[in-house]
Amino acid sequence: MHFYSDNTAPAAPEVLAAIQSANQGMARAYGADEWSERLDSAFSSYFGRPVRAFAVATGTAANSLALATFTPPYGEILTSADAHVIHDECGAVELQTAGARLTRLDTSNGLLDAGVLEDWLADHPASVHSTQPSAVSITQSSECGTVYTPSQVAAIAAVCRERSLALHMDGARFANAVASLGCAPGDVTWKVGVDVLSFGATKNGALGAEAVVFFDPQRAADFELRRKRAAHLFSKMRFLSAQLLCCLEGGFFLANAARANQLAARIAAAAGSRMLYPVQANAVFLRFGPGQKDELRARGFGFYDWGPPRMQAARFVVSWNQPQGDVDALCEALAGWN
Amino acid sequence: MHFYSDNTAPAAPEVLAAIQSANQGMARAYGADEWSERLDSAFSSYFGRPVRAFAVATGTAANSLALATFTPPYGEILTSADAHVIHDECGAVELQTAGARLTRLDTSNGLLDAGVLEDWLADHPASVHSTQPSAVSITQSSECGTVYTPSQVAAIAAVCRERSLALHMDGARFANAVASLGCAPGDVTWKVGVDVLSFGATKNGALGAEAVVFFDPQRAADFELRRKRAAHLFSKMRFLSAQLLCCLEGGFFLANAARANQLAARIAAAAGSRMLYPVQANAVFLRFGPGQKDELRARGFGFYDWGPPRMQAARFVVSWNQPQGDVDALCEALAGWN
Amino acid sequence: MHFYSDNTAPAAPEVLAAIQSANQGMARAYGADEWSERLDSAFSSYFGRPVRAFAVATGTAANSLALATFTPPYGEILTSADAHVIHDECGAVELQTAGARLTRLDTSNGLLDAGVLEDWLADHPASVHSTQPSAVSITQSSECGTVYTPSQVAAIAAVCRERSLALHMDGARFANAVASLGCAPGDVTWKVGVDVLSFGATKNGALGAEAVVFFDPQRAADFELRRKRAAHLFSKMRFLSAQLLCCLEGGFFLANAARANQLAARIAAAAGSRMLYPVQANAVFLRFGPGQKDELRARGFGFYDWGPPRMQAARFVVSWNQPQGDVDALCEALAGWN
Amino acid sequence: MHFYSDNTAPAAPEVLAAIQSANQGMARAYGADEWSERLDSAFSSYFGRPVRAFAVATGTAANSLALATFTPPYGEILTSADAHVIHDECGAVELQTAGARLTRLDTSNGLLDAGVLEDWLADHPASVHSTQPSAVSITQSSECGTVYTPSQVAAIAAVCRERSLALHMDGARFANAVASLGCAPGDVTWKVGVDVLSFGATKNGALGAEAVVFFDPQRAADFELRRKRAAHLFSKMRFLSAQLLCCLEGGFFLANAARANQLAARIAAAAGSRMLYPVQANAVFLRFGPGQKDELRARGFGFYDWGPPRMQAARFVVSWNQPQGDVDALCEALAGWN
Repeated sequence: MHFYSDNTAPAAPEVLAAIQSANQGMARAYGADEWSERLDSAFSSYFGRPVRAFAVATGTAANSLALATFTPPYGEILTSADAHVIHDECGAVELQTAGARLTRLDTSNGLLDAGVLEDWLADHPASVHSTQPSAVSITQSSECGTVYTPSQVAAIAAVCRERSLALHMDGARFANAVASLGCAPGDVTWKVGVDVLSFGATKNGALGAEAVVFFDPQRAADFELRRKRAAHLFSKMRFLSAQLLCCLEGGFFLANAARANQLAARIAAAAGSRMLYPVQANAVFLRFGPGQKDELRARGFGFYDWGPPRMQAARFVVSWNQPQGDVDALCEALAGWN
Repeated sequence: MHFYSDNTAPAAPEVLAAIQSANQGMARAYGADEWSERLDSAFSSYFGRPVRAFAVATGTAANSLALATFTPPYGEILTSADAHVIHDECGAVELQTAGARLTRLDTSNGLLDAGVLEDWLADHPASVHSTQPSAVSITQSSECGTVYTPSQVAAIAAVCRERSLALHMDGARFANAVASLGCAPGDVTWKVGVDVLSFGATKNGALGAEAVVFFDPQRAADFELRRKRAAHLFSKMRFLSAQLLCCLEGGFFLANAARANQLAARIAAAAGSRMLYPVQANAVFLRFGPGQKDELRARGFGFYDWGPPRMQAARFVVSWNQPQGDVDALCEALAGWN
Repeated sequence: MHFYSDNTAPAAPEVLAAIQSANQGMARAYGADEWSERLDSAFSSYFGRPVRAFAVATGTAANSLALATFTPPYGEILTSADAHVIHDECGAVELQTAGARLTRLDTSNGLLDAGVLEDWLADHPASVHSTQPSAVSITQSSECGTVYTPSQVAAIAAVCRERSLALHMDGARFANAVASLGCAPGDVTWKVGVDVLSFGATKNGALGAEAVVFFDPQRAADFELRRKRAAHLFSKMRFLSAQLLCCLEGGFFLANAARANQLAARIAAAAGSRMLYPVQANAVFLRFGPGQKDELRARGFGFYDWGPPRMQAARFVVSWNQPQGDVDALCEALAGWN
Repeated sequence: MHFYSDNTAPAAPEVLAAIQSANQGMARAYGADEWSERLDSAFSSYFGRPVRAFAVATGTAANSLALATFTPPYGEILTSADAHVIHDECGAVELQTAGARLTRLDTSNGLLDAGVLEDWLADHPASVHSTQPSAVSITQSSECGTVYTPSQVAAIAAVCRERSLALHMDGARFANAVASLGCAPGDVTWKVGVDVLSFGATKNGALGAEAVVFFDPQRAADFELRRKRAAHLFSKMRFLSAQLLCCLEGGFFLANAARANQLAARIAAAAGSRMLYPVQANAVFLRFGPGQKDELRARGFGFYDWGPPRMQAARFVVSWNQPQGDVDALCEALAGWN
């Protein structure tokens, strides 16, 4: 019973079918194929405004290249203390930006607060001696399984605008956030001031496909060159694009996310006071008593520890295809300890 | 009729089947799955010695990360004037090495000569003021459709060893070279002094999968960290690994390459004195008279120009699935002009 | 009355005389001159063991190049939250390391504690997904005007050794620390586990000269190439070296530092409860009431604010040549408010 | 008798006097001093138009930072095959540009020809796969001791303008070029299309000071941040600025250069047919017969070999303070072999 991460899941059957169907005959390489050429318009429909979208294969590629477009080498990116870009990308942002700095701000339940951002900026006036604040990166849904409301994003964006900072959203689990909010994709992105989104598909059913979406096409600037240089311009790009098109255009994608969220909510209900953070998407964070994590593992549950060892906490992520029985079993185990 | 490149071809049916078959249930992410864990041994069998192999998704990733493992930021990589790493990777090697230099040496028919390398090194003694020669990169089969013999590689490797330079082989079309030479994969790599190989699968039938193969496992060093940082550690790594395993273990892979080589040889025969370089793999380079390239294009042949415009030359690459009819038509068109 | 920083001071007369005396006739460039060739032995005498020393012109060059020698691009450098390398070098460390990360640890009075370091390491186990802890950087005397005792440094070094981290000391004000401790230079460096020191001379009387000192000559590794590439190998290197030799060999250097420390101690005594941190070297940090900083400025005192604006704090640094009258005046002003 | 390089010379007495005179009392650090604040206007007078000028301490810093201002990481800089930025800066340009590429174009007598540049650009159309031509760098006087006429520079600049390339001039020996041409400094720079100049002072009498001069102040852009990050913003900046002011404003500077040029011309006359290139500034390149270089060295002449060993050539550079007797002796030795 894998609760390690939603990336332990296989690809959705709809995605494999899309790849199969794209695998017919010759097609121009490097994005000059019919699938890739439809990407901008498919994302524009999805978001309800003209955007530019670029396919890449990993979330780390999406994040690091998106941020590099807005951040000079002497720039500074303000992000949450829990951010994936800080903890799980082995310096990818630093590589693609040629050495810009990631600075951690305190969060509440994994969510960055506009006031905290504003205070930090007031307390750190830039000079020729300092790195230069250039962008803010937030994660939706967050690394703690919580979800920013549109108004929370708007408040952050207002601070960004005033300071000429770009606002990046790491949407590795964007579908889970949209399903949780019950809003349109645009409601929590460009309408509230997001400049660029890492749109995640892999965790929610793709084989390996993400997109970088620029809400102002003018600002895509030199992204194409950066993607190529980072070795993320695929020769057989049609296979990435076909995955993304099918996720955008098939109802299964939102349904997958909604299902995972609902199963996570059931775990939350069973966990009661063990919860570290509100469960608003498909991840649940729990604290345990001595020996309890070992016991769960002995009973066949796979999951990662969370936080410093002495916290005795753990993370459970529900995948799009998580067998309902896994969740039933976990709920039962947790309920037995209450 | 696409002769642009072998990357306009679709994936081979065997590869799609392998992906389908890997798409069952949960699997640990980031390479802790059963397919990825079999990669080293599959490549070791393929090459006839213990190696370490790392899957990546693009040839540019393979080349740039392989070279970065052996080249410090102040290093210099000596390569052929036609090299893909120079002309077609938008500075990827410079990115991954943090600024090492690629230096072009003259070639004969796209092949670097050991004597040219030796002379260059003698003429450019290193000092604290210069970049430091660190690696040599050769392409097999070459960007000009020619193939290094084992003894040509051995001669280059001897110069490398004497100067403590690493020897990298860009094998984007390694299968075509092996099919052309009729040798074992080890015969033209580690047995003749190659340190690290970019093993190409995409052009010869994969969806998108390449491998970096270290012939001395000790020297893989920090490759894993570099791959992650470059955003080329895939979460659903099983799909890359499954592609590679199927290429290594299925007879179709060598057969695909051999077929493409044979069709290219037929074009060569029809082209006669138009040929710029000997045709030893699956690419043919031809020079034309005024208007002839336009005429070919008007007749439905798709291909890229080669060299400076005034050369009036063109490149034709035969794909693994190239319809025989395409080749017949091209041969006929060429023969009509002789 | 400049209390902005000790770098507002001129060069000491001894230093100008040394430059004058080195300015005789031709001398081989790039360090092959008689002054530069004496550098290693002069620093070896100064520290009481064989070392390798490299002249550079700025403290930022010393810090960033020293750290780059020990830190790979995917590395992480643990340092104090107040560190100069974080706040005042505009990303120089990131540039020279090709993107390694600086991580801030909490300090007490500007001093990093071995226990805090140990806890952080325990709480952040490294994996392929994370940056890799590679070095620790501490500042002596610290950015808060405090001084590490040899045993405090030894405790940090013990944690470093266990985790194979290099220990770097930013000694921009090393002479002030040595004068404060009354110890030999070796007592607070190599004898207690420091691997590499940025030895500062500029603030204490040089025109512009610092040195990077490797206590294990083997580990100087590729420093010479990194210095050249960073454009810090001077053609007329004799002038940097002559400054350093004169600082190492002239008694004035320690005397300058001791004098500045004593004047700072007088300010501390006058400031009483305004002090933010113990005054152990030549810098004094004070908090003020509303309007008091303005009033001091109106009376001709020049100094920088410290910390976030709402703290109403300020930093006063005493220079080697600070007129005693400046200090008298400041003491009097402060005493008037007590 | 040192003919190694003009950087074996000491500083001119005028320069030391200027430093001495700047060494009075406190002065704001990092360029907020009275000398530094006068730099822009002094350079503007020197060049006859409003410019922005930034002091750095080495020519490599000037070149690499100037080029980094105009070249993105995926950019390409076209330069002469003999260029200092290629051969003698250990990858500094690659460091500061975060990996841009230096491409060597053939030269005639060390001078890049506009036609060669134009042909190269025509033969190398840029695409998303290639690095992007961004700047051209020429050296004045050149690494071969020759000098571009204003009209030669203008022809190169015309090609640059058409292709939106920046034009950089490495003026490590700019004074020698100006003395040779007998023109005003502006005549061979901004009036003929140069965008940015590395203005050299060190070789012609400074202790260690160069300037980066932007002829369009708007384009200085983020230079200040790049200089700081490269560790070339000096705390005691007054000493760099004082050197530059004294070179710009003192007649000795041009006189020094003219004297060195004239002595070089005398060597050229004595060398006759040994000359490799026309002698137009202060460097002379000669070819020798077997054993002759050894013999010269045995007679006390110090100089560097030039080119590959089998060329048996050598470079002689005349310094601003070269004793006339050194030149007499060399002329005599050469004449004896004719």
